[in-house]
Amino acid sequence: MAEDAQDGTSRKTHRLEIFSDAIFAIAITLPVTDLKSPRVGPNGDLAAAYAAMRPDYIAYGLSVTVIGLYWAYSHFSGKIFLKTDHGFNLLTVVFLALVSVTPFPARSFVEHLGDANARTAACVYTALLAAPSVAWTLRWLYGTSRGLLDPALTPQYLRKLTVKYVATSAFMVLAFVLALAGAWQVGAGIAALATLLHVLPPAKPQYRPGQEPEDELEEADDRVDKAESVERAAQK
Amino acid sequence: MAEDAQDGTSRKTHRLEIFSDAIFAIAITLPVTDLKSPRVGPNGDLAAAYAAMRPDYIAYGLSVTVIGLYWAYSHFSGKIFLKTDHGFNLLTVVFLALVSVTPFPARSFVEHLGDANARTAACVYTALLAAPSVAWTLRWLYGTSRGLLDPALTPQYLRKLTVKYVATSAFMVLAFVLALAGAWQVGAGIAALATLLHVLPPAKPQYRPGQEPEDELEEADDRVDKAESVERAAQK
Amino acid sequence: MAEDAQDGTSRKTHRLEIFSDAIFAIAITLPVTDLKSPRVGPNGDLAAAYAAMRPDYIAYGLSVTVIGLYWAYSHFSGKIFLKTDHGFNLLTVVFLALVSVTPFPARSFVEHLGDANARTAACVYTALLAAPSVAWTLRWLYGTSRGLLDPALTPQYLRKLTVKYVATSAFMVLAFVLALAGAWQVGAGIAALATLLHVLPPAKPQYRPGQEPEDELEEADDRVDKAESVERAAQK
Amino acid sequence: MAEDAQDGTSRKTHRLEIFSDAIFAIAITLPVTDLKSPRVGPNGDLAAAYAAMRPDYIAYGLSVTVIGLYWAYSHFSGKIFLKTDHGFNLLTVVFLALVSVTPFPARSFVEHLGDANARTAACVYTALLAAPSVAWTLRWLYGTSRGLLDPALTPQYLRKLTVKYVATSAFMVLAFVLALAGAWQVGAGIAALATLLHVLPPAKPQYRPGQEPEDELEEADDRVDKAESVERAAQK
Repeated sequence: MAEDAQDGTSRKTHRLEIFSDAIFAIAITLPVTDLKSPRVGPNGDLAAAYAAMRPDYIAYGLSVTVIGLYWAYSHFSGKIFLKTDHGFNLLTVVFLALVSVTPFPARSFVEHLGDANARTAACVYTALLAAPSVAWTLRWLYGTSRGLLDPALTPQYLRKLTVKYVATSAFMVLAFVLALAGAWQVGAGIAALATLLHVLPPAKPQYRPGQEPEDELEEADDRVDKAESVERAAQK
Repeated sequence: MAEDAQDGTSRKTHRLEIFSDAIFAIAITLPVTDLKSPRVGPNGDLAAAYAAMRPDYIAYGLSVTVIGLYWAYSHFSGKIFLKTDHGFNLLTVVFLALVSVTPFPARSFVEHLGDANARTAACVYTALLAAPSVAWTLRWLYGTSRGLLDPALTPQYLRKLTVKYVATSAFMVLAFVLALAGAWQVGAGIAALATLLHVLPPAKPQYRPGQEPEDELEEADDRVDKAESVERAAQK
Repeated sequence: MAEDAQDGTSRKTHRLEIFSDAIFAIAITLPVTDLKSPRVGPNGDLAAAYAAMRPDYIAYGLSVTVIGLYWAYSHFSGKIFLKTDHGFNLLTVVFLALVSVTPFPARSFVEHLGDANARTAACVYTALLAAPSVAWTLRWLYGTSRGLLDPALTPQYLRKLTVKYVATSAFMVLAFVLALAGAWQVGAGIAALATLLHVLPPAKPQYRPGQEPEDELEEADDRVDKAESVERAAQK
Repeated sequence: MAEDAQDGTSRKTHRLEIFSDAIFAIAITLPVTDLKSPRVGPNGDLAAAYAAMRPDYIAYGLSVTVIGLYWAYSHFSGKIFLKTDHGFNLLTVVFLALVSVTPFPARSFVEHLGDANARTAACVYTALLAAPSVAWTLRWLYGTSRGLLDPALTPQYLRKLTVKYVATSAFMVLAFVLALAGAWQVGAGIAALATLLHVLPPAKPQYRPGQEPEDELEEADDRVDKAESVERAAQK
């Protein structure tokens, strides 16, 4: 990698992962604050009060599903990154801020599914689901172009992931455009499908011949440390 | 372990533990936001205002107890896991989301203990206590069947934990069923007992002969690193 | 240390420190949610609205000071602990839950300083300041009696810390008792003094001769790892 | 460094970084709680309700930008620190508490941009933007004077950063003074510029000849560990 202004800001990914995980953890837990114990008098109908909160439960479930799947994917992705730099950090902040906002329109979407506001609610929700997906893809493109990934991975494998991320983002944007054009049921369906596909495990990393990790748990960071320790031993 | 789609997603448990701990930390702290400084005028009765918040204090105590015990147990459990995969990550998200929701019905449960809504309140609370317990057990069964635990542990020890977790979940579900059937006092009592039993320390891990850790602080992850470093030294 | 039921639950302190730091971080940040941008119309008096929130600012400052000083102290304390067990984890949860609650009565305390409710407000606040102090001391006593601290520390040093923690807790309880007895100004003053004394750096650890760390950054955990690696090298 | 009371409190920066990252993560995510799904009836105008929240969206964007840039800068800064002590921990708490408060006046600032309260709103916002900037600089001056930074860095490099931080803080304070003096548009502009300049990557660390890290990912902490392991090998 050519020397440039960003070089001095490179660090291993540990701290970025801790920061990301903390934001994921907060974003996935904060929607709980919208679930308030219902307040009814001693002779009020508590069961009815709980039942009336059904849209809140569904919205909570949606929010946890979206953020949980993003976290699980970023958990895997951390495995194949070697380092981070200032630009990647900033793109990560943008991505995480957009993920944090996804619970915001969920309640409205659930509440208005069957009334005149359904299309508006679906437009806002699909837009806010598409945004982090696009940010994720931009962050990935930046990372690959800056050489932040494990150099032992094959170019074919990286290309496969690029195609996958670009396609997912394109489907999410399409979902929003369809909702905007009036076909909000189709749009919401596509967004749901593109989200739920992340339940499937990500593709197994492919390494260049002779550069495979020693076992499935060894990561790029470990390899750097090992190379250093071998070199050091040789110097003695 | 046979090669399958999940293999490429295996990682050591560090990042999963950080994510889990962050969610536990947030979930156990958020109930504090329900404790708002009472607002009374200069000549109002502040003592009475504080006293009136008694159900809030008890609900806070219940929530901290439930989540704190889950954390302490998962702290121990992190010691005996070797790695995680995509499926285990997703089950962990489900488990943590269910733990985060346990404070939601606590306030209602405390408030309605002595009135006509007691049974309803107990049903909801025992249901939300049973849910993370069942998720924990499913996650454990998945982890053992996928070989995610320290391979040096004896099968007898793993079986003992399986029996314990299945039994605990069964009792929690029984507590809910009893509450639903009307015997909510018995149900709540069983749920309280099954929860409080976690104050006792978990059973000491049993290792296969010749595979014991060198000292009580060595964990599966450390052992992997050590094996690698011995192997590396031998190659020189 | 004699073998007992707790042994199997010992772990290095990394995960406990992450969990603690996460709770400290949340507890110290949550009071921000009580600072809401004032809402006034285009011709309303925004300056007056900001000024009217003065008690909120002071309460926020108090809360940050209390929790920040606890964190800084626990940061140091993490340095001298070697390991944790189930009982210590549970006591840590109790301590952290009590720290998290300290912001709750701060607003009332500030608001009623000059009116008829001052004594009540001071009683509640000093009680909630004394609680985590007592929990900290109990946790320390448990830790020393269970051998969880770095065995290289001198007994004199541990005794010095024990005296300090017991004395601090005693002063905090005294502050509460004085507030309860009517001398709330004296009580609040003692609690403030006992809190602010933690601005001073903690006493430098004293190690047994021949067991000093190699440099000021080496901690008990590092020493365990080093001992293992020396032993391993010798076995080859 | 001369031996003094603070020496015993030195630790590597890992735990400080985790605590900082957790606070950054919470502070950057909490503003999401101000974005509440609008509640309109089935025939209400949901689109108008979403549109009416525009000041909230802008305020959220401002808050994320300010905190995100601070995090990215502190991410880099963690790379060049070797250790922390009690005083640095306390200054870090002050800095982080001030960063956490920056979202508080953002909503008012956005809402009153075009009305009679614009100057007041700008004064409060620029003051709260200047505060963490000054705290950051004080913390930096403390760190350099206490020898907490990587000793391999050149004095010229440290001086360059000192000039940069002092200048940034001075501009932020100037922005507040201008707003106070009535020229709030100029003040807000300077504050915005001084904030957005952090999008640029920080200057690449300069090391003393012969003390360069072996590669761009090696940090001061790693070097300490390596030195120890070489020394240990030599002793055998």
